[in-house]
Amino acid sequence: MFPSKLFSGLLTDLYELTMAAGYVQNRFNDRATFELFVRHLPRNRNYLVAAGLEQALDYLENVHFPPDEISYLRTLPIFRHVQTSFYDFLATFRFSGDVWAMPEGTIFFAGEPVVRVTAPIAEAELAETSLLSIIHLQTFIASKTARVTTAAAGRPVIEFGSRRAHGVEAGVLAARAALIAGCAGTSNTYAGHCHGVPAYGTQAHSWIMAHDDESTAFRKFLDVFPEQATLLVDTYDVRAAIDKTTPWDANPVGCASTVVTYWPIVSGLGSGLIVLAGRMCKFSSRVTSMKIALRHFSQATPIDSFGVRTALSTSADAPNVEVIYKLVEVELDHQVRGMAKFSVDNKTYPGRKQVFYFQGENGHYSGNTIALEDEDFPLAKSLLIPVMRDGHRLEVACQDPVSSVRNAQARFLAARAHLPEHILRIVTAEPIYPVSYSAGLESLPEQARNSFLSTASV
Amino acid sequence: MFPSKLFSGLLTDLYELTMAAGYVQNRFNDRATFELFVRHLPRNRNYLVAAGLEQALDYLENVHFPPDEISYLRTLPIFRHVQTSFYDFLATFRFSGDVWAMPEGTIFFAGEPVVRVTAPIAEAELAETSLLSIIHLQTFIASKTARVTTAAAGRPVIEFGSRRAHGVEAGVLAARAALIAGCAGTSNTYAGHCHGVPAYGTQAHSWIMAHDDESTAFRKFLDVFPEQATLLVDTYDVRAAIDKTTPWDANPVGCASTVVTYWPIVSGLGSGLIVLAGRMCKFSSRVTSMKIALRHFSQATPIDSFGVRTALSTSADAPNVEVIYKLVEVELDHQVRGMAKFSVDNKTYPGRKQVFYFQGENGHYSGNTIALEDEDFPLAKSLLIPVMRDGHRLEVACQDPVSSVRNAQARFLAARAHLPEHILRIVTAEPIYPVSYSAGLESLPEQARNSFLSTASV
Repeated sequence: MFPSKLFSGLLTDLYELTMAAGYVQNRFNDRATFELFVRHLPRNRNYLVAAGLEQALDYLENVHFPPDEISYLRTLPIFRHVQTSFYDFLATFRFSGDVWAMPEGTIFFAGEPVVRVTAPIAEAELAETSLLSIIHLQTFIASKTARVTTAAAGRPVIEFGSRRAHGVEAGVLAARAALIAGCAGTSNTYAGHCHGVPAYGTQAHSWIMAHDDESTAFRKFLDVFPEQATLLVDTYDVRAAIDKTTPWDANPVGCASTVVTYWPIVSGLGSGLIVLAGRMCKFSSRVTSMKIALRHFSQATPIDSFGVRTALSTSADAPNVEVIYKLVEVELDHQVRGMAKFSVDNKTYPGRKQVFYFQGENGHYSGNTIALEDEDFPLAKSLLIPVMRDGHRLEVACQDPVSSVRNAQARFLAARAHLPEHILRIVTAEPIYPVSYSAGLESLPEQARNSFLSTASV
Repeated sequence: MFPSKLFSGLLTDLYELTMAAGYVQNRFNDRATFELFVRHLPRNRNYLVAAGLEQALDYLENVHFPPDEISYLRTLPIFRHVQTSFYDFLATFRFSGDVWAMPEGTIFFAGEPVVRVTAPIAEAELAETSLLSIIHLQTFIASKTARVTTAAAGRPVIEFGSRRAHGVEAGVLAARAALIAGCAGTSNTYAGHCHGVPAYGTQAHSWIMAHDDESTAFRKFLDVFPEQATLLVDTYDVRAAIDKTTPWDANPVGCASTVVTYWPIVSGLGSGLIVLAGRMCKFSSRVTSMKIALRHFSQATPIDSFGVRTALSTSADAPNVEVIYKLVEVELDHQVRGMAKFSVDNKTYPGRKQVFYFQGENGHYSGNTIALEDEDFPLAKSLLIPVMRDGHRLEVACQDPVSSVRNAQARFLAARAHLPEHILRIVTAEPIYPVSYSAGLESLPEQARNSFLSTASV
């Protein structure tokens, strides 16, 4: 299980700590701005869904270094020559910076800053690893889920993937991210309790197998859950099992509301399992096909809801997203200097940025522009809002757990309704959603490079 | 961040709780045995490495239901008709069962039970989701790592993937699993502190960018870390940066021990980033190729160590493993009855099992046999050992965190040395490693099915 030090300052890459020691010891405590963004869309994704900000702010508000963690660092050979000032810094360390971010549920694209952190440079540096990790998990799960819920075309989708998520925490937070991107609930009971995600369940094969026969197994379950029982029909013979559920239809106490079976998904949404739940009277005529993909179900197929397991909880077809956290600005001696990186493969743009989106006359989103924060686009709306100041959440970022996911889901559903139709398809969109850099930004890198050489301010 | 209730009984799928209610209310408290195994090897894997048992036993020893969790369950509509006896059961619930398992670091194959749980059926059922999730994460990360460390052919590999792991917990435990499968260390400082995994770090582009020029950035870092500094050379121009590191070679205080650059892996081990660290004098002649895969480095390439990021921490080419947890036996009225599942796609074998391995005269493993626990193979050794009795760890399973991973790594390295050479290759092995079911097991399912129909004991 995950250890109990949840807001440990050591939840970071060692190089963040060595660099922080370097900044502290060199008395380099100017404020710096870092932007977290996704460099390229992963395969099979036409857009991404921002998620995880709630947990990220939680971490920033609480991260600190207990004495045992500082003692541990002192034992590391690489810290041998580090002066006491650094350990003093750690002992009183609290994150004191400002954060702008896209609210959870926002649809975004490659290159767009999702979170922007401004803080004394050592603090902003120390936050990197956990910020990336926290935003990464829920963002790519939400982005995967968005495909699944879109394909389900309004029929409820339940997240059933905890058992093969990447550990216990990933299971809980995948359930939360899935709700943000339109799922109706989860099998993860902890997520139900602590994140307000409605919890659902079916029945395991072991329940059927542990009883003398299938009819007894069904009846014993209906005795305990007379109103909402779900019966599992594929332990031995699906058709025979469905026949055995029929008598309970005539019994007002013992009436199964749904029957359920497991089938592999073979294409479209990646490998995994789905649970098909439909009223058995309709469902019994549909149990012949053993190879199906979710997108192949038309609205006419008598299926009430879908459950999706590993394909969703691990985003199996794209199990990670290229999130990065880049320095874009340093305030040196009251001069603001834009920062960019110029190696051939990985050019970045300097300066604090904002993302603007434009809508066409039909209400559909027509394109985004990444620009400097202070550029003005009268016809556009902006996506990044301030969520933390001086290390404290702003009111807009103070929500109870249930409102937090519900509001994010509402934001996602509203945004999805405005995406161009071809961006919503399961297949790779052609053309991709238009995202441009502002003329102001495009002119900057050269200027920033000059600044890098001349130490002039931008 | 992950919530603080680490051993919450709600860290399970809701259906485990409804079935447990069904067992309790029906007074069905016979002991049952479940086996956790992997149904099929994932693509690109010729073998798997067991990991995560330490955290799994930790969970079983501590899982319980605090009052607020029981109150939550009472609010769920599906529990409306559940009687008080179930909530009483939860209030005093502790896992009281027995566990046999493969020690961490054991090499195993599809179909082989990795963990075997025997407990009153409701307890064994409630353990399912978290057991699967905990064993799953570290097992597939260790299995991925085994490929990477084998390809590195003795040169140290450092796990650098926390930032794109599936959340904070996954990052910490991926570092632990990576050490088990032969990594030399991790960038994850928390894993260093709490799991005894040596922590390493390099330098970020932001450090270079934040300084007036690259030479200053190098020098300021060497001031603080004069003995073990690693300098990053690909922020602007790799060759120019290496030239800038040279003067420090002549300075006994400011001598960079390694220089480092980031390059994408394009094949073989999946996408991701590797860090190449080599003594700069040798390394500077090698910076022309921008597209390389780890397996393409011969021993002659002057590289001291490898760092692997996302490809390892998310096992990107196979981001999950088909772990399942199946009922294989129930003790009913002092009769032991084997349990198996007979639907066409997913046949399972009944009975408590053991895995035996055989060695050829050259010391190489020659094949495994999955058999009933009490079958006897005088020439073979067995892989499953008892690790928990009546809910308490046995002495063999009581290790401090550092010994726990070190011993597991030693076990893995020893086992790997005995695998046939073609199983160790990066490409899919042909033929696969031979794993058979014993004649006793092969004859059982039909017998168990008869037992299912007749309620006779096996």
